[in-house]
Amino acid sequence: MKNKDKVVLAYSGGLDTSVAIQWLIDKDYDVIACCLDVGEGKDLENVREKALNVGAIASIMLDKVETYADEYLSYAIRGNSLYEETYPLISALSRPLIAKELVKIAHQYDAKFIAHGCTGKGNDQVRFEVAIHSIDPSITTLAPVRDWGFSREEEIEYAKAHDIPVPINLNSPYSIDQNLWGRSNECGILEDPYAMPPEDAYDLTVAPKAAPDEEKIIDITFNAGLPIALNGNMMPLHEIIKQLNVIGGKHGVGRIDHVENRLVGIKSREVYEAPGAMILLTAHKDLETITLTKDVQHFKPYIEQQFSNLIYNGLFFSPLADHIKNLLTDIQQYVNGETKVKLYKGNITVIGRKSDNALYNEKLATYTKEDTFNHQASVGFIEIYELPVKQATRVYGGEQHE
Amino acid sequence: MKNKDKVVLAYSGGLDTSVAIQWLIDKDYDVIACCLDVGEGKDLENVREKALNVGAIASIMLDKVETYADEYLSYAIRGNSLYEETYPLISALSRPLIAKELVKIAHQYDAKFIAHGCTGKGNDQVRFEVAIHSIDPSITTLAPVRDWGFSREEEIEYAKAHDIPVPINLNSPYSIDQNLWGRSNECGILEDPYAMPPEDAYDLTVAPKAAPDEEKIIDITFNAGLPIALNGNMMPLHEIIKQLNVIGGKHGVGRIDHVENRLVGIKSREVYEAPGAMILLTAHKDLETITLTKDVQHFKPYIEQQFSNLIYNGLFFSPLADHIKNLLTDIQQYVNGETKVKLYKGNITVIGRKSDNALYNEKLATYTKEDTFNHQASVGFIEIYELPVKQATRVYGGEQHE
Amino acid sequence: MKNKDKVVLAYSGGLDTSVAIQWLIDKDYDVIACCLDVGEGKDLENVREKALNVGAIASIMLDKVETYADEYLSYAIRGNSLYEETYPLISALSRPLIAKELVKIAHQYDAKFIAHGCTGKGNDQVRFEVAIHSIDPSITTLAPVRDWGFSREEEIEYAKAHDIPVPINLNSPYSIDQNLWGRSNECGILEDPYAMPPEDAYDLTVAPKAAPDEEKIIDITFNAGLPIALNGNMMPLHEIIKQLNVIGGKHGVGRIDHVENRLVGIKSREVYEAPGAMILLTAHKDLETITLTKDVQHFKPYIEQQFSNLIYNGLFFSPLADHIKNLLTDIQQYVNGETKVKLYKGNITVIGRKSDNALYNEKLATYTKEDTFNHQASVGFIEIYELPVKQATRVYGGEQHE
Amino acid sequence: MKNKDKVVLAYSGGLDTSVAIQWLIDKDYDVIACCLDVGEGKDLENVREKALNVGAIASIMLDKVETYADEYLSYAIRGNSLYEETYPLISALSRPLIAKELVKIAHQYDAKFIAHGCTGKGNDQVRFEVAIHSIDPSITTLAPVRDWGFSREEEIEYAKAHDIPVPINLNSPYSIDQNLWGRSNECGILEDPYAMPPEDAYDLTVAPKAAPDEEKIIDITFNAGLPIALNGNMMPLHEIIKQLNVIGGKHGVGRIDHVENRLVGIKSREVYEAPGAMILLTAHKDLETITLTKDVQHFKPYIEQQFSNLIYNGLFFSPLADHIKNLLTDIQQYVNGETKVKLYKGNITVIGRKSDNALYNEKLATYTKEDTFNHQASVGFIEIYELPVKQATRVYGGEQHE
Repeated sequence: MKNKDKVVLAYSGGLDTSVAIQWLIDKDYDVIACCLDVGEGKDLENVREKALNVGAIASIMLDKVETYADEYLSYAIRGNSLYEETYPLISALSRPLIAKELVKIAHQYDAKFIAHGCTGKGNDQVRFEVAIHSIDPSITTLAPVRDWGFSREEEIEYAKAHDIPVPINLNSPYSIDQNLWGRSNECGILEDPYAMPPEDAYDLTVAPKAAPDEEKIIDITFNAGLPIALNGNMMPLHEIIKQLNVIGGKHGVGRIDHVENRLVGIKSREVYEAPGAMILLTAHKDLETITLTKDVQHFKPYIEQQFSNLIYNGLFFSPLADHIKNLLTDIQQYVNGETKVKLYKGNITVIGRKSDNALYNEKLATYTKEDTFNHQASVGFIEIYELPVKQATRVYGGEQHE
Repeated sequence: MKNKDKVVLAYSGGLDTSVAIQWLIDKDYDVIACCLDVGEGKDLENVREKALNVGAIASIMLDKVETYADEYLSYAIRGNSLYEETYPLISALSRPLIAKELVKIAHQYDAKFIAHGCTGKGNDQVRFEVAIHSIDPSITTLAPVRDWGFSREEEIEYAKAHDIPVPINLNSPYSIDQNLWGRSNECGILEDPYAMPPEDAYDLTVAPKAAPDEEKIIDITFNAGLPIALNGNMMPLHEIIKQLNVIGGKHGVGRIDHVENRLVGIKSREVYEAPGAMILLTAHKDLETITLTKDVQHFKPYIEQQFSNLIYNGLFFSPLADHIKNLLTDIQQYVNGETKVKLYKGNITVIGRKSDNALYNEKLATYTKEDTFNHQASVGFIEIYELPVKQATRVYGGEQHE
Repeated sequence: MKNKDKVVLAYSGGLDTSVAIQWLIDKDYDVIACCLDVGEGKDLENVREKALNVGAIASIMLDKVETYADEYLSYAIRGNSLYEETYPLISALSRPLIAKELVKIAHQYDAKFIAHGCTGKGNDQVRFEVAIHSIDPSITTLAPVRDWGFSREEEIEYAKAHDIPVPINLNSPYSIDQNLWGRSNECGILEDPYAMPPEDAYDLTVAPKAAPDEEKIIDITFNAGLPIALNGNMMPLHEIIKQLNVIGGKHGVGRIDHVENRLVGIKSREVYEAPGAMILLTAHKDLETITLTKDVQHFKPYIEQQFSNLIYNGLFFSPLADHIKNLLTDIQQYVNGETKVKLYKGNITVIGRKSDNALYNEKLATYTKEDTFNHQASVGFIEIYELPVKQATRVYGGEQHE
Repeated sequence: MKNKDKVVLAYSGGLDTSVAIQWLIDKDYDVIACCLDVGEGKDLENVREKALNVGAIASIMLDKVETYADEYLSYAIRGNSLYEETYPLISALSRPLIAKELVKIAHQYDAKFIAHGCTGKGNDQVRFEVAIHSIDPSITTLAPVRDWGFSREEEIEYAKAHDIPVPINLNSPYSIDQNLWGRSNECGILEDPYAMPPEDAYDLTVAPKAAPDEEKIIDITFNAGLPIALNGNMMPLHEIIKQLNVIGGKHGVGRIDHVENRLVGIKSREVYEAPGAMILLTAHKDLETITLTKDVQHFKPYIEQQFSNLIYNGLFFSPLADHIKNLLTDIQQYVNGETKVKLYKGNITVIGRKSDNALYNEKLATYTKEDTFNHQASVGFIEIYELPVKQATRVYGGEQHE
C-alpha cells in the first residue's frame, strides 16, 4: 500500500484552515499543521491542539517573534519601509518568515506539498507561493480556500458535518491579520472608502480623543540603524517593539487608513494599527537626517520604494531584495545616536536628535559669531551653478518665465 | 553729468534691507525699493513708505497673494511637494515670484541691477539670483548683506549714523520668513538639533496640547488636483489656504521640525509652521489613491522628489521644472473629488475620500457575494509571476534563504 | 434563428491564422479577417483574398504605414526607446496600432469578439489583449492558437482536412515579425544564446563584411525631435524610415542580438534588424546633447526606461504611457537641428551636429583667447561643493579611502 | 630660520606643471614632484628627473597601473560606467587614485599642501580637490595654473627666463589625457561640434576604413563581473586591458565623439579612444543579460547612472559612491561566464554568451516540443495583469485611445 502524500499546512486555528485540514484529508493527504507565533498575541498551544483534534497527523507550534524582529523587521526599519509611503507592510513582512519555516518542516517530514489558507484575491497567496518557491522550487503549493469553491454557508455546513468547531465570532464583518509589527483590518464597512472607520475596527490603539492628556516622552537609542534601547535601557528589538506597541497604543498613535494598490490589480481599502512600527520608523528616519550625507539621503527614497514594493509583492527572498538588504545594512553603519520622541493623542513628534556621528556642524550652520562658513565662496559658487540656466534662457528665451 | 545706475531692491522693511538702501546709495546707485505681499500678514503700506524715508527714489508695493497661490502653490499641491519628504518649500516657492516681479520692475525702470538682502550662507541668495537670470541673464545681481562685511554691531552703528530706524525686536534670536504657504524659523536655540523648539518659536499654530478638545471635520473639494471648495463653499485657492491656516493653526496642526540639507553644502535645523499647506497636501495625496492608477502613483514619487529638489534649489524657472509642471498638470486631470479631513490636537486625518473618477471598484474589492473578481485567474497569474524567482533559485541556489 | 457571434481576427495570411479562421467557424463564429499593412512589405491583397477563401465572411486590408510612423514610431524616437537599452520595440510598437484598428472594425461590424494568432508564451498575446481592453474593456478576446492544443503535425492535418493551403516554407526554423521599424527573428538555432546567428537569420541587412567599402554620409534634419528631411529633402517620417532601411541595410547597420526578459517571466534570445530605427535613434540622441539642458538630459533616461517598459509590456495605451508621451513631446520642442551621420560596414557614427537651439557655447567652452568663462569662480564653487565630503570625512573618518 | 612649507605637486612633465614648480618656489614652497604611471605609456623616469632639474627638492615616480585596474577600473566594469551613456570616464577614474597617492606622499613628507596643474574650467580641478579632501580635509590645495593668470605667451617667457625646457610640440591644438582606460582629446577644431574630428585627433586607434579586412574573434572569461582571461589565458586585469587596447585599436573600435555636460556648468565636445574599455563594457553588459534576473537588470541602470555621475563629479571617494561600490560587487557575484566578441572595422559585436550561472532556460524559451512553459497559465496572468487598464478605461473613458 502506497504511503499518502504529506502536506504542511500553515494553520491559524480559524475556520478556513481548520476546514482545510479536513478538505486535504479528503484529497488523501496526511496533514502536518504548522502554527507560527510572530506576535499575534494568541494562545497558540490551543491552536496547536485544535489541529490535531481536527485530524492533522502532526501539529507544530513555533515561537518566531525574535527571529521576525531580527531578520525581517530590522530591514523594514533600515529601509523606512512603507508601501506607497503609507503601509508598514505588516502582513507582507511575516509571510516570507512563515514560508521559510513551512519549507523547513516540509523538508523534515519529507513532504512535497505546502498549503496555505489564502483566498484567490489577495496578496498573501502570491507572497506565500513565491516565498516558498524562492527557497525550494520543487515544492507544490496548494490553496484549498481558493480551490474549494465553498460559499460561507457551505463551508460552515461542511465544518459541522466533520465536527470542526465553528468560532462564535464568525459574524465579525472584518478580516484581520496581526503580528508584532501591527494589525491589519479590511472588509465590512471599510469597503466603502468614504466611510470613516468605526471604533470597533481598531484593537491595538485607543482613539486620539480617548488618549491621556499627558504627553509621553521616550528616548530611543539606535545602533547601525536599529533601535537598541528605550529610555537608556538596552533590550532586544522584539521587546522594544512590544513595549512601544503598548505605549503607542495607549497614546493613540499608529492608526493608518489606506486605499492601496494590490499586486493582483485592484485597489482595496485597509485600516492598519502599527503604533510601535510608526514610532520607530519616525524616529529612525529623523536620525538619518543628521547622520547621513545629503547624497545618500536623496538616493535612499528610490531604493526604499523599490524595497517596499519587493516586500509587498512577495519578493523578500529574491536576488534584488537580497542586494538591497545588503545595501541598506551598509548604509546604516552610520545611523547611530538618539532621538527623543513625544507621543500625545495620536501625534508622534521627534523633538530632538543627537549622534556622535552627526554630520550636522553647528559651526557651519550658525548665524552667530562662531560662524566658520565662507560667505564669499557663494559668489563663485552661484556664478558657476547658474551657467546652464542662463545659457538656456539666452537660447530658448526667457519669455515663458516673464 | 552721467545718470546714476538704477538698482531694484527686494525690500522687506527690516534692518538689513533698510541699511542696504543706504549702502547702495553710498555705492552711487539710485535705489528702487520693491516690497511684495505674498501673504506675510504685514502692514506693507508702512514698509513702502519706510523705503522712501530711508532714501529710495521710488518704492513699490505689490499684492501678489493670488498669483502666488495660482501660479506657484498650485504646482506644489499637484506635486505633493515636500523637500526631503518633510519641508513644504515655504520660502523656496515665493522666491521665483519675487524675482519675476523684480525683473519686471527693472525692465520698467530700465534698471540693470537687482539687489536682495540675503546672506552668503543660505539658499535664498541662490534662488533669487538664479530665478532672476532665468528670466533675464543680462541683469547684474547685488547682495549687499553678503558683501558689506558688517558685524551686527557695525550694522547698527551704520544705521544710527544714517538715521535708519533700528527695530525694537532686534534681539529676537530667530530668523523668520513667512508667506501664505507658512512660516519658517531658524537660529537661536534651534541651532541645537537636540533642543526641543520652545513655544516662542511658533506663531501660526498653538501647541497640540493647547488646541481645542473638539475635533474639526472639513470637506475639501478638488478639481484637477486643486482645491476649489471648503465644506462645499467654492472659493479661490488663496482664500482656501488662508482659512485653513487659521483653522489648522487653532487645532495645532502643521508644525514641522527638520534638519535639512541646504543647497550650499551644510545641514541646518529649521522649524516650520504650515497648517494650511499640510492639510491640503495630506488631503490631495489621499485623493490620488483612489483616482490615479497604480502605475501613475508609483511613478509619481520620483517625479515629486525631482520637482521638490528643483524648487528648493532655485530652479523653479528652468527647462526641467517647466516640463515637470506640465507633466503634473497633465496627471492631475483625473484628481477630482472630495476628501473629509479631521483636525484634532495636531493630527490631520483623512477619514473618507470619494470621486466620480474613482478607480476603486467595490465590486472587485469586496469579499461579499457581490465579488466579481475571478479567483481562479490567480493560479495562472502566480505561475507566470513566479517563474523568474524559481529559475533564480534553481540556478543560484536557495540556501541563502533557508 | 439566432445570429452567430461575430469575431474580428487579426489575420496575417500564415498557417496559424488561416487555421484559426476555420477553428473559429467550428466554434460557431462569423469571422471578419483584418490584415494591416504597417510596413511588412508583403502583398496584402493576396492575404486579404486568402481569408475569404478560407471562410471569412469579410476580409479587410488597411494600409496604416503612415499612421504607424506618425503616431507610434514618433514617440519611440522622442523617447530614444530601446527596451533594456537594446531592442527598438519593433513588434511592441505595432501591436497597439493593430489592436486599435481591430476595435474600430469590431465596432463597425458590431462584433463583441476579437481574436489574435499569438501563442501562450509570448509578449504579443498580452500586448493585443491589453491594448484592445484599454480601448474597449467590454470586448472578449480569443486566442485560438493558445487554446487549440494542436501539435504542429495536428495543425497541418487539420489544415489539409479543411483545404487550407499550407505554406511551402513551413520548415523555416525561424519565427519572424516585420514592420516599418524593423524585423525580429527568434527560434531555431537562435535558441542557443552561445550560437552565432547564421546569415540566413537576416533579411533586411547585409553582413558588415559584405557591405560596400565606401562610407555613406547622410544629413538628417530634425524638428521638435522628429526627422523631417534627409540630405535636405523634406519628406514624411515613414518615407524617411523606408529610405534609411534601404541605405542602412546596404551598409550592414542595425543588426541586434539580444537575450531579453519577456513580460511572461522568461528570458529569450532574439535577433533584430532595424537599420532605419538605429540610424534615427543614434542621430536623435546625439542631437539632444547640444539642445537639451544637462538637467533634462540626466532626467530623461529614467523616463525613457519607464516608457520602453510600458511599450514592451503592452501598456502603450495606458494613463502612465499617455502622460509620458505628452512629457516627451514637451521636452522635444527644443530638439531642432541637423546631424551628419556616417554609415560604414556596420557602424553608425555621428560626425557632426548643429542647431539654432544649441546650448553648446563655444565662447564658454573654448581654451583659446575667446574664453569668457571666469576661472576664478571655480575657487568658490569648489569650496562650497566639497563641504559635504569634507564633513563626512571629518566625522566618518578618511581611513577607508587611504 | 623657519622651514619652508612643503607642497606635493602632481607632476606630468609638461610645460604647465614644470612652470608650476618654479612658480611654487617663487611663492616660497619646497616642491615635491610626484608622477604617477596609470598607463600613459610615457617614459616616466625622464619625467621624474625633469622635475629635479626644474627645481623640485624631491621627485617621485610610482607605477600604479595594476592598482588602477584592480581598485578603480574594476568598479567601472561592474557598473557598466558610461557618463551620459557615452563617456567611459577615462580621466575621471584616474583622478581619485592620483589624489590618494599625493595624500600619502604629503603625509610621508609632512606636507600640508598639494598642488595640481588644472585650469579653472575643467572637471579635473574639482576631482583632485574633492578627492584629496575626502581623504584628508586638513590639506590645503593649490592650483597654480588657475591662479597665475599667465597668457600662453607669458607662460613661455616665464619658462625661458627660468631655464624650464619648452616642449617642441607645444603648438598641438589638442589637449590630451591618457591612461590605461583610454585617451581623451579636446580643443582645437574639436571645439566646433559640427566639425568631423580629423584623423590626427586619434592615436590609439586606426580609422575603421584603415582596419584589417579580417574579423577578429575573442573569448573573454568573466568571474564575479570581472574579466579574468582572454581566449582562455588567465591574466591580470591590467594586462587584459592592455592587450585589448592593442587589438581593439588595430580594428578601429572604441572611438567616441561626445558633447558632454561638465560639472562646472558648460557643455564641451570631447573625442575619446577607449578600445579596451569599450570591448570589456560591451562584453560585460551582454553577459549580464543571461546571468542577472530581470528585476536586477531593470534596477541596475539607475544605479549605474548615479555611479557614473559620482565618478564624473569627483565623488569616487564619498559615502554614496562607497555604498554603490559594495552594491555593485554584491550584484556581480553571479556574473560569471564567457562572451565571444567579434571585432571588425569599428564594430564590437557579441556573437555568443554562456554561463554556468545562466538564468536563460532553453526548456522554457523553446518553441520546439521540449517546451515546458504552461501556455494556459497566460490566460489567468493576463486577466489579472490587465485589471488596472480595464478599470482605468471604464472610469476615464477609452476615447483618447480610439
